Amino acid sequence: MQDTARSHGDPRSLGDSPRVGVWLVGARGSVATTAVVGAAAIAAGLASATGCVTESPDFTVTSDSLPAIADLVFGGHDVVDVPLTARAGELADAGVLPVALAAAVRPALEAAEREIRDGSARAGEPQYTAARRFAADITDFRNRNGLDQVVVVNVSSTEPLPDPDPAFLTLADLDKALAASTGLLPPSSLYAYAAFHAGCAYVNFTPSAGAALPALEELARLRGVPHAGRDGKTGETLVKSALAPMFTQRALRLRSWSGTNLLGGGDGATLADPAAARSKTESKQRALEETVGHAVEGVVHIDNVPELGEWKTAWDHITFEGFLGVRMTLQFTWQGCDSALAAPLVLDLVRLAALARRRGESGALPALGFFFKDPAASSEHNLTLQYAALTEWAAMSAEPARRSEAAR
Amino acid sequence: MQDTARSHGDPRSLGDSPRVGVWLVGARGSVATTAVVGAAAIAAGLASATGCVTESPDFTVTSDSLPAIADLVFGGHDVVDVPLTARAGELADAGVLPVALAAAVRPALEAAEREIRDGSARAGEPQYTAARRFAADITDFRNRNGLDQVVVVNVSSTEPLPDPDPAFLTLADLDKALAASTGLLPPSSLYAYAAFHAGCAYVNFTPSAGAALPALEELARLRGVPHAGRDGKTGETLVKSALAPMFTQRALRLRSWSGTNLLGGGDGATLADPAAARSKTESKQRALEETVGHAVEGVVHIDNVPELGEWKTAWDHITFEGFLGVRMTLQFTWQGCDSALAAPLVLDLVRLAALARRRGESGALPALGFFFKDPAASSEHNLTLQYAALTEWAAMSAEPARRSEAAR
Amino acid sequence: MQDTARSHGDPRSLGDSPRVGVWLVGARGSVATTAVVGAAAIAAGLASATGCVTESPDFTVTSDSLPAIADLVFGGHDVVDVPLTARAGELADAGVLPVALAAAVRPALEAAEREIRDGSARAGEPQYTAARRFAADITDFRNRNGLDQVVVVNVSSTEPLPDPDPAFLTLADLDKALAASTGLLPPSSLYAYAAFHAGCAYVNFTPSAGAALPALEELARLRGVPHAGRDGKTGETLVKSALAPMFTQRALRLRSWSGTNLLGGGDGATLADPAAARSKTESKQRALEETVGHAVEGVVHIDNVPELGEWKTAWDHITFEGFLGVRMTLQFTWQGCDSALAAPLVLDLVRLAALARRRGESGALPALGFFFKDPAASSEHNLTLQYAALTEWAAMSAEPARRSEAAR
Amino acid sequence: MQDTARSHGDPRSLGDSPRVGVWLVGARGSVATTAVVGAAAIAAGLASATGCVTESPDFTVTSDSLPAIADLVFGGHDVVDVPLTARAGELADAGVLPVALAAAVRPALEAAEREIRDGSARAGEPQYTAARRFAADITDFRNRNGLDQVVVVNVSSTEPLPDPDPAFLTLADLDKALAASTGLLPPSSLYAYAAFHAGCAYVNFTPSAGAALPALEELARLRGVPHAGRDGKTGETLVKSALAPMFTQRALRLRSWSGTNLLGGGDGATLADPAAARSKTESKQRALEETVGHAVEGVVHIDNVPELGEWKTAWDHITFEGFLGVRMTLQFTWQGCDSALAAPLVLDLVRLAALARRRGESGALPALGFFFKDPAASSEHNLTLQYAALTEWAAMSAEPARRSEAAR
Repeated sequence: MQDTARSHGDPRSLGDSPRVGVWLVGARGSVATTAVVGAAAIAAGLASATGCVTESPDFTVTSDSLPAIADLVFGGHDVVDVPLTARAGELADAGVLPVALAAAVRPALEAAEREIRDGSARAGEPQYTAARRFAADITDFRNRNGLDQVVVVNVSSTEPLPDPDPAFLTLADLDKALAASTGLLPPSSLYAYAAFHAGCAYVNFTPSAGAALPALEELARLRGVPHAGRDGKTGETLVKSALAPMFTQRALRLRSWSGTNLLGGGDGATLADPAAARSKTESKQRALEETVGHAVEGVVHIDNVPELGEWKTAWDHITFEGFLGVRMTLQFTWQGCDSALAAPLVLDLVRLAALARRRGESGALPALGFFFKDPAASSEHNLTLQYAALTEWAAMSAEPARRSEAAR
Repeated sequence: MQDTARSHGDPRSLGDSPRVGVWLVGARGSVATTAVVGAAAIAAGLASATGCVTESPDFTVTSDSLPAIADLVFGGHDVVDVPLTARAGELADAGVLPVALAAAVRPALEAAEREIRDGSARAGEPQYTAARRFAADITDFRNRNGLDQVVVVNVSSTEPLPDPDPAFLTLADLDKALAASTGLLPPSSLYAYAAFHAGCAYVNFTPSAGAALPALEELARLRGVPHAGRDGKTGETLVKSALAPMFTQRALRLRSWSGTNLLGGGDGATLADPAAARSKTESKQRALEETVGHAVEGVVHIDNVPELGEWKTAWDHITFEGFLGVRMTLQFTWQGCDSALAAPLVLDLVRLAALARRRGESGALPALGFFFKDPAASSEHNLTLQYAALTEWAAMSAEPARRSEAAR
Repeated sequence: MQDTARSHGDPRSLGDSPRVGVWLVGARGSVATTAVVGAAAIAAGLASATGCVTESPDFTVTSDSLPAIADLVFGGHDVVDVPLTARAGELADAGVLPVALAAAVRPALEAAEREIRDGSARAGEPQYTAARRFAADITDFRNRNGLDQVVVVNVSSTEPLPDPDPAFLTLADLDKALAASTGLLPPSSLYAYAAFHAGCAYVNFTPSAGAALPALEELARLRGVPHAGRDGKTGETLVKSALAPMFTQRALRLRSWSGTNLLGGGDGATLADPAAARSKTESKQRALEETVGHAVEGVVHIDNVPELGEWKTAWDHITFEGFLGVRMTLQFTWQGCDSALAAPLVLDLVRLAALARRRGESGALPALGFFFKDPAASSEHNLTLQYAALTEWAAMSAEPARRSEAAR
Repeated sequence: MQDTARSHGDPRSLGDSPRVGVWLVGARGSVATTAVVGAAAIAAGLASATGCVTESPDFTVTSDSLPAIADLVFGGHDVVDVPLTARAGELADAGVLPVALAAAVRPALEAAEREIRDGSARAGEPQYTAARRFAADITDFRNRNGLDQVVVVNVSSTEPLPDPDPAFLTLADLDKALAASTGLLPPSSLYAYAAFHAGCAYVNFTPSAGAALPALEELARLRGVPHAGRDGKTGETLVKSALAPMFTQRALRLRSWSGTNLLGGGDGATLADPAAARSKTESKQRALEETVGHAVEGVVHIDNVPELGEWKTAWDHITFEGFLGVRMTLQFTWQGCDSALAAPLVLDLVRLAALARRRGESGALPALGFFFKDPAASSEHNLTLQYAALTEWAAMSAEPARRSEAAR
C-alpha cells in the first residue's frame, strides 16, 4: 500500500483556502447527515455557523489557515443504504433540521450520496485486503475531486471495545496478523489503519477504539499523519467538564456523582448492548476522577428510550461536602440533540486536523482534547483549560504554517 | 484621624505566621459565627479545612506568607446582642454546625464575644465622628491583642444601594460631607472609611456598596491599604460562572437564563425588601452578560421562604441555540447552605488581604475576583480563569514578599 | 335584547348528534387556531383525539348525547386580523402543529375565518349597545349555519380583574349601568353578558372575570343557560391538583410551595403586565390552600421569556414535614405546550356545555371544575375527585336527557 | 402448633383502647427504631403524629376502635445485635431523629430492646421447627405483656424472591415440605407462617414474598387472621400513584417513564444485589402499567450511594403525547428520608390490622392497598381512590365492630 498523500505542487497562494475532503465512516448516520446539510447551508448563506467553535472570534488569527466550510467536500463509507436525502427528511421530521433547509440543500446531499461507498466486510476477506480496498476508495475520492487532502472521521455506531491482543502493540505484528485475520481489528480501528495508509488524518468521534492502539500510533507517526479522538463531548460530559473543576477550585469535596442518560435513536439502541455501553460509561467516569483527583461514588446509566428519538436527556445528581462537614447537592438536567451538537464539532475537527496535517504534525493531537470525553494523549478535562490549550495551539501553528509554506 | 497602621518593627523572622485580627462587621450573624467556630475547630484539629481555598495544594508555595488559620483573632461590630454561643447553638439546631463542635469551641466563641462592640449609629452623630469611633474600636482591638494587622470584613445584612451623590466622587468632598451628615454613607461604606483610616484592609462579602465609591478607592490608595469585594459568590452565581463560559467556548448561543432563588434565614428576610434585592439581582445579571458578551433574556428572583432556614435552593433554567437553530435546554438545582459556603471564603479572604497588605498593595485587588459575584476592578467571570489569576497572584507575590521583608 | 335560543322544533331523532356552533372570543389566538385545526383533523381522520377527555372510554355512556367533534362549526370575535391560515402556519413553525396537517385542513380554517367578526370596542359606544351587537353576531352565526345551539368560549388574552363595583351585584343595576358606561365591564364579562342574552352557554377558559359576577349569574339563571369557568388547568396547576392531595392523605405537613412559570407567546407578554398576572397567580394559590386546608409559604412567579414561544416551563419546589419533624423536598419541572393542552379541553368544554344546555341546566356548572384552576361553584381541587364528579355528572345526565327528549 | 389468639375474656368496655403488641421482624433496623422512638415520643407528648394517616380527621369516626399509639407495646426478632439505643443514636446523627428526642425516650427503647429475640436460622433446623420457635417467642411476648393481640410486621431487609415451588400452592404440601426443608421459604414468608400459627395479623412492609403465597393465604383464612402488604409506598412510587392517574384522566398518552433511585443505608446495600432489586423494580413497574392500561417505555434503576445515608433521591422523567401528537415532559425529584416516611405508616398498619383482626376479617386486606406499591388482592393504584377505599373501610367497620363487641 502506497502513501498517496497530497501532491506538494499545490499552485494556490499562501492563505488560499484549500479544498479538503471529509470521508465520513457512517456517512448515512444522523451526525454525518446533519454535518453535510449544515456545511451546505452555511456555504449557501442559509444558516449561521452557530455551534462551530472554529468560526468564533478566538480563531480569527488562525482562520486563513483553516479550510473554509464552503471548501469541504463530503464522501464516506456506510453499511446501510437509505440515501442521504431520505435521512435528511427523517431528521427534519424529528425537529433536528428545519424542514425547508433539508429541501434547499438537496443537491449537496445528492453530491455527497454519489461519493458514498459500501463499507461492509466481505466474507472471508482478510482485514489487510479490506483496508487496502477502503484506502483505495478514499484515494479515488481525493483524486476524483482534486482535493488537497482528505480527513477521515469515524461517526459510525459505537462498537464494543476489543479484548487486548499482543498484535495491537507493534505495527509489524499488526501487519502480519491482518494479512490472515478477518476479525482482529474492530471496524473503527481498521478504518484508522486504512486512513493512515492513504496518508489521511483520522478523527474518532465515537467511544470505539479507533486509533487508540500502540500499533496504529506507530503507523500514524510513520506516515506523518495526525489523529484525534475519542468520543465527542456533546452532552452530560461537556457539562461535567465545566462543573467538576468548580469543586476542586473551591476546595469542596465531591462525595458522589450519579448520572442517568436517556436517549433514543440509533445510539440509544446500540448502547442498550451492555458491551458497547461499557466503552462509553468508562470514558465518562475516567474524566471525572482525573479532574478531582480521587474516586467518587456513583453510577452512570445509559438507557435506550426509543420515544426520545434524536433527543437526549441527562440527569446528574452530585453531592459534596463543605465547611465543617455540611452536605450539599447540585443537580442538572441536560436536554440536547446529539446530532446538532456533534455535527458542527465534526466540521471543526476536520478543519483543525487538516491544519495539523498541513503543518506536518503527526500522531495523537493533545490540543484537540477540548472536543473529547477521553482525549488522546491528554488527561486535562477542565473545559476552560482545554479551550485555552486549543486556541493557543491554533494561533501558534498559524505562524509557522505560513513560514513553512513560504519557504517552499 | 491618624493612620495607625501596624508598626514596622515586627520582630518575627521571615516566614513566621503573623497574628492577624479579623474584624467582622455583623459579628453575630450566621456567616461570622460559622467562621469563628470553624477557625477554632480547625485550629484545635477538630475539623478539616474543607471549603478553604487557601488550604489547597495550589497555595502551598504561598502558604508560609499567609497567616495560619490558628493565628486569626476575632472581634467585630454588631447591632444585635444575641451572644455568639447562642447563635452557634441555633446554627447547630439548623444543621449548619455539628452539635458537638459548637460545644467544643465554646471558649473561642466567648473570647470573640468579648471583642464585639456596639455598631449602632447614635442619634445626631455625624458620620465622620461615628467613623472615628469605629476606627478606634478596631485600633484598640489590634493593640489589646498585639496583632500584626487587622482585616475588616463586612458580613452584615445587605443594604439598599445608595443613590448617586457628588460627594462620593472625591475624598475631599466626602470628608467635608461626612463632618455634617448623619446618613450620607450606607453602613458598609462607613465601615470601609473607618477601616482605611485605621490602616486596615477591607473586604466586602455582601452586595452592599462597601468600598465601591471613587472617594473610598482614593482613600485606600492614600493610606496604602488594599480592599476586595463585592458579594461573595457562594451559590447560583458560582455555578453560573462555571457554566456560562461553556456556551461561549462551544459557540452555542445563549437565548435565556432565568433563575429563582429560595432562601430563608436573615438573608431571605432582608432581600424580601426589593430595594436590597436590587443590589443583589443586578450583580447576578451583570456577571452573565459580561461573560457571554450580549444581553440574555430572563429574570432572576430572590424569594424569602422562612421555612428553608439557613438553606438555599436555586433553580436555573437556560435555553440555548445550537447548529441550524436547534433549541436546547439546561437546568440546574443548587441546594446549599450559604453560611457554610461563605465562612471558609471569609477565612481565605482575610488571609489573602493580609498578604496583600503585608506586600504593600493598595486599592482594589482584582486578583481576588474569584471570590465575588461583582469583582472590583475586573470584568472576568470565568471561574477557571479567575482561579488561575488568583493562584498566579498568590504565587508571584510570595517571592517579592520575602525579598521586601528581608530588605527591611 | 331578545332571547333567541335554539328553536325547539329540532327534527333530529333522539341520539342524533346535533350541530353545535363554537363561538371563540379570541378566535385568532393560538388556542383557538389549534382547536379549529384539531377538530378538522379529527373529523377528517387525520389525527387521533389524544387530549380530548370526552373521547375517553369513561364517557362512552354519555357520548351519544354529546355533539360529535365533526359536528362542531367554528366562528368568533377577535380584535386582530392575522388570518387563521397564517396563524396555523406560525404554529406549525413553532412545533405546535404538524406542518402537513396545517396544510391539509386549510379549507376548514378558511371556513372558520369567514365566520370571524370584529370584536373591537367602538369609541363612545355604551357597553349595552356593544353587547347587543356581539349577541347579534352570534345569533346570525347560528341562523346562517342552522345550528342547534352555540357555545361561546373565551380564549382571549388575560385581562386585569375589575375593581369591585356595586353594579356587579344585581342584574337590574348592571343593565342600568351598561346603558351609559363605555368601560364598566371587562371584555370577558361583556361577552358573557352578550352570550347569555343570545341564549348561549358560556365557557371562560381564562383567568379573567368572565361570568363570575353575581349579576351575570342572575342573568344566566334567568335565561336558563349554563356557564363554566374559569382559567383552564393546563400545566403547573394541573400537576398541583394531582400532587397536593397526596400530602393531606399521607398526613405530611406542607411547609412551602414555590413556583416559577416561564412562558413566551402572547400569554407571556400579557402576563408581564402585573395587573393581569395578579388574576392568574391568585387563582393558582387559592387552589393549593383550599386543598391542604392551611396557609402555605411560597411565591408563584409568571415570567415572560419570549424565546420560549408557545412553550412553557414550570418549576415547583415543595417542602414538607414528616414524622418527628424531618424535612423533605419534592420538585417538579413541567415542560408543556399550552395551546396543545388547552385546545382539546376547549372541545371538551363545548361538548359538555352543549349537553348541559340541552338538559336545561342553568348557572355555574360545578361538575366541570375538573377543567379549571378556579372552578365556579366548587372548592374541590383534588383532580381524581373532580374527575369522578365529572364522569358521574355526565353519565347521570345521559339518561334524563334521553327521557326529556323523548317526552317532547 | 396451637392457635393462641387473644383471650376473649377482655374485661375492657367497648371503645376502650386495647393494648396491642407490635412484633417487628427486623426490630433493630432503621424503620423499626424510628417507629419505636416515634410511638414513645407521641405517647409522651414530645412529638406530633405528623405522617400518621390514622391520626388525621378522616379517621375520627374509626379512632375509638383503633388501639391508641400510646397503647402499642414493641418487641421483635432480629439477626443483628446492635442495641436499639445505639441505633437511635446513629439515626440522630444522620438527622432522621432529633438528638434530644432519642435521649428522652431511652426507657422506651430499653423496654423494647428487652423484648427482642434472636431471629437467626439454626444450622440443620427444619423450617417447621424454626416457625414453632418464632411463634412461641411471639406468644410469650403477648402473654408476658398481657396484650389483647400482637401484629407481626416485616421491616427487615429485602430478600430475593423465591423461585416458584409446587409446595407454595397448598397448605398441606407446604406443611409437609417444611417438616423436612431448611431453606424452602424465604424468611419473610416463614415469619408470616409463624405469625398466622400464633393467631396474629401479619403486615409485610417490604417487597419480599411474605404472605403472598397461596398456601399462606390458605393458612391465614384457616386461622381467621388478616394480612396486608406488600412493599410500603414511601417515595417515588407514592408520587407515581398520585401523578399517573392525571395522564389517564386528561387523555394524555404516556410515552415513557424512566426512574433513577439513589439511596444509601442498609437498603441501598441490599438492593445493590440485583436479585433483591428485581423484586423491588418489578413491583414499581407493575403499578404504573396497571394504572395507565398499557405498556410504557422506560427503565427503573436502584443505585446504592452509601454517601446518602438514610436519605433517598429519586428522579423520574416522563414523556407524554398531547393533542395532535405534541410531545411534552414532566420530571420530578423526590428527596426523602425513607425511615421517617415508613415508620408512621408502620404504626398505621398495626392499628388497622389490629382493627381488622378484632373485626374478624381474615386473609388479604385489599382496603389497605393505599400503603403499598404492590397491594395484595387489589390492582387499584390511584392514590385518591385508594384513600377513599381505606377511609370507607375504616368507617364501615367501625359500626359492626361496636355491634359485635356489644353482642359478646
